[in-house]
Amino acid sequence: MECILLGTGGMMPMPERLLTSLAVRLNGRIYLFDAGEGTQLAWKRLRLGMRGLNVICLSHLHADHCLGIPGLMMLRAQMPDPSPLTLIGPPGIRRFVAMLMEILEFRINYPVSFVEWPEETNGFAYLDDHVRITWRPLRHTRFCLGYRLEELERPGRFDPHRAQALGIPRGPLWKALQSGKSLMTEDGRQVRPQEVAGPPRRGRAIAYIVDTCPTPAIQDLCGGTDMTFIEGMFLSRHGDLASARGHMTVAEAVEAAAAGDAARIVLLHVSPRYSDEELPLLEKEGTNLNRETVLGRDLDVYSIQLRD
Amino acid sequence: MECILLGTGGMMPMPERLLTSLAVRLNGRIYLFDAGEGTQLAWKRLRLGMRGLNVICLSHLHADHCLGIPGLMMLRAQMPDPSPLTLIGPPGIRRFVAMLMEILEFRINYPVSFVEWPEETNGFAYLDDHVRITWRPLRHTRFCLGYRLEELERPGRFDPHRAQALGIPRGPLWKALQSGKSLMTEDGRQVRPQEVAGPPRRGRAIAYIVDTCPTPAIQDLCGGTDMTFIEGMFLSRHGDLASARGHMTVAEAVEAAAAGDAARIVLLHVSPRYSDEELPLLEKEGTNLNRETVLGRDLDVYSIQLRD
Repeated sequence: MECILLGTGGMMPMPERLLTSLAVRLNGRIYLFDAGEGTQLAWKRLRLGMRGLNVICLSHLHADHCLGIPGLMMLRAQMPDPSPLTLIGPPGIRRFVAMLMEILEFRINYPVSFVEWPEETNGFAYLDDHVRITWRPLRHTRFCLGYRLEELERPGRFDPHRAQALGIPRGPLWKALQSGKSLMTEDGRQVRPQEVAGPPRRGRAIAYIVDTCPTPAIQDLCGGTDMTFIEGMFLSRHGDLASARGHMTVAEAVEAAAAGDAARIVLLHVSPRYSDEELPLLEKEGTNLNRETVLGRDLDVYSIQLRD
Repeated sequence: MECILLGTGGMMPMPERLLTSLAVRLNGRIYLFDAGEGTQLAWKRLRLGMRGLNVICLSHLHADHCLGIPGLMMLRAQMPDPSPLTLIGPPGIRRFVAMLMEILEFRINYPVSFVEWPEETNGFAYLDDHVRITWRPLRHTRFCLGYRLEELERPGRFDPHRAQALGIPRGPLWKALQSGKSLMTEDGRQVRPQEVAGPPRRGRAIAYIVDTCPTPAIQDLCGGTDMTFIEGMFLSRHGDLASARGHMTVAEAVEAAAAGDAARIVLLHVSPRYSDEELPLLEKEGTNLNRETVLGRDLDVYSIQLRD
């Protein structure tokens, strides 16, 4: 699993710091979180293929998080036979896209389905054969969602000791069990792959949490993740700005993520008020509280390995 | 007068070639033509001030020409006490802006007035104390406008011979006439500044013409301009694409502008299909037809001097 930072800025795109957008690449697919003005520039700079992009999750309908959507949709329409696109986000995303398609008269050659946050939900947003995406409302100046993407559980590892205990000889039968097939032993017993496997192995998990004041939902989202991408928009000395604008300081973000037991924390959505020279200050504020914290930079790629 | 190319690409922004946008700077004011996704990045790279930007002209409502407007409007709202903004363009620009302001919930601290192309018009779009802007419909896949910006005529130069012939002695009286004041001579005659000035001097003029097939309107717009900025989207060998998509080849553009007696021609709105290495081919195709032709590059600045 590769987590690619297309941008790490907040509020407005800057020449050296595009707006926050996270692409999670897994098994040839790309799950994209947020796309503001200019996200397609980073996409092109990295030469990411469009073929893998089928799912886009939007935190909320502020311009700096969604105004890049039409451009990406048009770019996607350059491919022959694109697969359907799923757009996930707060109520209003369907209208936003429909409105722009109508006013700007742009056409696409694939169906789009919308998953808008419903009034009643169990916190589940999306499922395919690789990942599960869940969401929680955050606390911002307008309705905003935080996301958690989890790789589906993988079957447990094949355990030769169990196979031997069940009297199954090493050889083609092991291979059949390893590839997920049930089989019948010579004495007529059925053996299912689960019987000769260790416990299911958890998949990798990440959280994407931007544009929020501290809220317990953060802990829910990043609990036990391998990596939490979370806004670190302001230094503590600008805490008054942070709370007035529905944001967090780096310290608040790191505390919230650490309370959720996030293994690693990547700060993003940095305020444009900070120059590149000031970024180490932001990072230090995070690292002082939690050593597994880094400040994300545009075009950073974080690789998350399977744990077992 | 400085003409600044914020971008020179067509269709979609590329990392090394942003979407076509022209800023004309005159007497501390900036008149902007088109703003697609990413235009604010070039604006920031050049450190252009926002204070001077009061007028934006949009050619048409395709995303690559107008999706940068919300970002510029928000950027403009960062200033204390911004002056009013005038948005000029095809019918629908008011709805486009109103819609995005509502859906994206962004607020601005200045009034916006819209000048939408009316059903009946004498071709006049805008006037202030420095420039006059006129417009003509072009021929594209949707309603699209070409623009001409003219500096207002300046008074004729003070002519010392005429002043002497009228018996006005060199000295403070000359100075008064030069600064535009009328005066009374000792023998009771009134002398107005025009009487001691040469003919009014024409102002500088430019045209901005993108997203069109060849049409006589081009000639009207660029007639006698100092500089015509015109799309040169395709090489002649891609002429079939050009006409199918409502565009021109470089050769068609240069011919049309030259027929309008444009003094200098700057090609822009280059198709993303051409790499940087292919740009000299486009330029050569133009130069072969008209030696006063160049291909514009991002961040180019063209200075237009007064002729007299």
